Amino acid sequence: MSGPEATRPGRVVAFGGGHGLSATLRALRRLGLAPTAVVTVADNGGSSGRLRASRPILPPGDLRQALAALAAEDDTSATNARLMQHRFAGTDDLSGHAVGNLLLLGLFEVLDDPVVALDHAAEMVRATGRVLPMSRLPLSIEAEIRGADPDRPADRVVVRGQHEVAVSTGEVCEVRLVPPEPAACQEAVEAVGGADWLLLGPGSWYTSVIPHLLVPELREAIAKSPARRLVTLNLATESETTGLSAADHLAELGRYLPELRLDVVLADARAVDGDEPLRAAAESLGARLVTAPVAVADGGPRHDPAALAAALGPILGHTKPIPGPADRADMR
Amino acid sequence: MSGPEATRPGRVVAFGGGHGLSATLRALRRLGLAPTAVVTVADNGGSSGRLRASRPILPPGDLRQALAALAAEDDTSATNARLMQHRFAGTDDLSGHAVGNLLLLGLFEVLDDPVVALDHAAEMVRATGRVLPMSRLPLSIEAEIRGADPDRPADRVVVRGQHEVAVSTGEVCEVRLVPPEPAACQEAVEAVGGADWLLLGPGSWYTSVIPHLLVPELREAIAKSPARRLVTLNLATESETTGLSAADHLAELGRYLPELRLDVVLADARAVDGDEPLRAAAESLGARLVTAPVAVADGGPRHDPAALAAALGPILGHTKPIPGPADRADMR
Repeated sequence: MSGPEATRPGRVVAFGGGHGLSATLRALRRLGLAPTAVVTVADNGGSSGRLRASRPILPPGDLRQALAALAAEDDTSATNARLMQHRFAGTDDLSGHAVGNLLLLGLFEVLDDPVVALDHAAEMVRATGRVLPMSRLPLSIEAEIRGADPDRPADRVVVRGQHEVAVSTGEVCEVRLVPPEPAACQEAVEAVGGADWLLLGPGSWYTSVIPHLLVPELREAIAKSPARRLVTLNLATESETTGLSAADHLAELGRYLPELRLDVVLADARAVDGDEPLRAAAESLGARLVTAPVAVADGGPRHDPAALAAALGPILGHTKPIPGPADRADMR
Repeated sequence: MSGPEATRPGRVVAFGGGHGLSATLRALRRLGLAPTAVVTVADNGGSSGRLRASRPILPPGDLRQALAALAAEDDTSATNARLMQHRFAGTDDLSGHAVGNLLLLGLFEVLDDPVVALDHAAEMVRATGRVLPMSRLPLSIEAEIRGADPDRPADRVVVRGQHEVAVSTGEVCEVRLVPPEPAACQEAVEAVGGADWLLLGPGSWYTSVIPHLLVPELREAIAKSPARRLVTLNLATESETTGLSAADHLAELGRYLPELRLDVVLADARAVDGDEPLRAAAESLGARLVTAPVAVADGGPRHDPAALAAALGPILGHTKPIPGPADRADMR
């Protein structure tokens, strides 16, 4: 079990799903921390979506990504992580499925409880930290979106499905979980209550970051936790956040969690250089704005785990990033 | 790696596939031995058959069964073995696939070599022993069968596919591998050369036991090995061996390996009680016939691992069967 490690000093809980969470977890692992990842479980796209369509399970994709990000680097663990991330090619029944998704599905069925299953999978990759779902219930996302149809820019329509919301280019007026107000994963609530730091973002704002604030017990735990809170902003807008400024991103968090107080807002130096509205928005939430070069070197809008570790280290009080091998290219 | 364990004193190589091999391996594990299983890789039925149909891989089913039979009993290993043996229910793309088959398929693709992949999977279940394919090539079985069509009992037809041969009720005149005379898995050849005991059977005679004798290097290694040789006979005939007596089973082995000399033929006390032709057939191959109660208690035609261990122990010189928990019912 990797769970107990998450209770040692320097307790960090990172919320999200997909690539953004993965980059954060890899950064934290480089810092020698054993974070608890709390993962959005509303994905309905790709391999996870196909599996959910016929089985009442948590979508495994983002959980698998988080496990791979926390995997140890010994040969056996690295091979297991590589196996989990391996996606079947070809054109048969298995094509497109990641092995880890099928493995998690199997563990969900064999062990009956997703948290027990995730702890077992974490042990398979000797994860540094723990991966939890935000809820034990498989969830969906829907959003009221204005201008989803470019020909009728003033119309508000309800778009259903995390994937459908994520690729929508209209203005997201409101995002909701289906079913609404689901029970939180209690282990996640406890981790939030006992944390030193809570990390939100980067990630798809409406479909990976904000959903945590739509789970009542989690929202309450985040508001009440004695932990310090850090938001890492995205490097660029995505389809779902077309037209939103960096400051707007913070404002949206505040909208779904009015009690939100932050300690630090971390942004890429180049992406927000001289962004006075952002500085003001951060300050209005109680946070100082820290800027640092955190993007990958190729200019893409993705966070580089090593750069993120270098930026997060001094903030979290872990100033000696572990000089590890370059993070592998299996973050797909 | 569990491989090195197989080189310690009491080196046993067990040949077969499916349930029969599984029972033998469970028996050997109870005796504290760390056998090397050499597995027929010609299965074209069920989950393995579906996977083979679109991917150039070894059929994983019998390999998985052997791994599960050798799994350690600590919680983590037992859960991993249970996961490997778990078969997806339902009616979607995954239905009918065992998780372990998909996991082996993933390892074959990720690690590129089936032996490396099997050693890795063996480590996942902390296998006591090693599981090897008889060949790195995916193989097929075909047979010339007389009377496959009950309406034309004298006709000889070629039946293709391990499954099709196994369920045929005609008389198997000749069984062949496709492609013929494949290269053997060298690790298996080496294990045979260094073994103290070679164990053939129980199992589907034409489709799980004899195929090993159709791999030239393996046939030669079995003939030349300084090891003692034991054949465990089946408890009942199967479709493919309709009409064959116990003595005929031995004669068929001798037909495919004329140099065959045996040390022991092990048979169930009740199944062969007073079978003089069998005794004579065993003696003609140099073997003494040992009879013992080795069947499951429910009267089914399956070997009971504990009973088999009790019978094999004195023969192999390991007379203290480990009193373990009853073997689990996951031998499907």
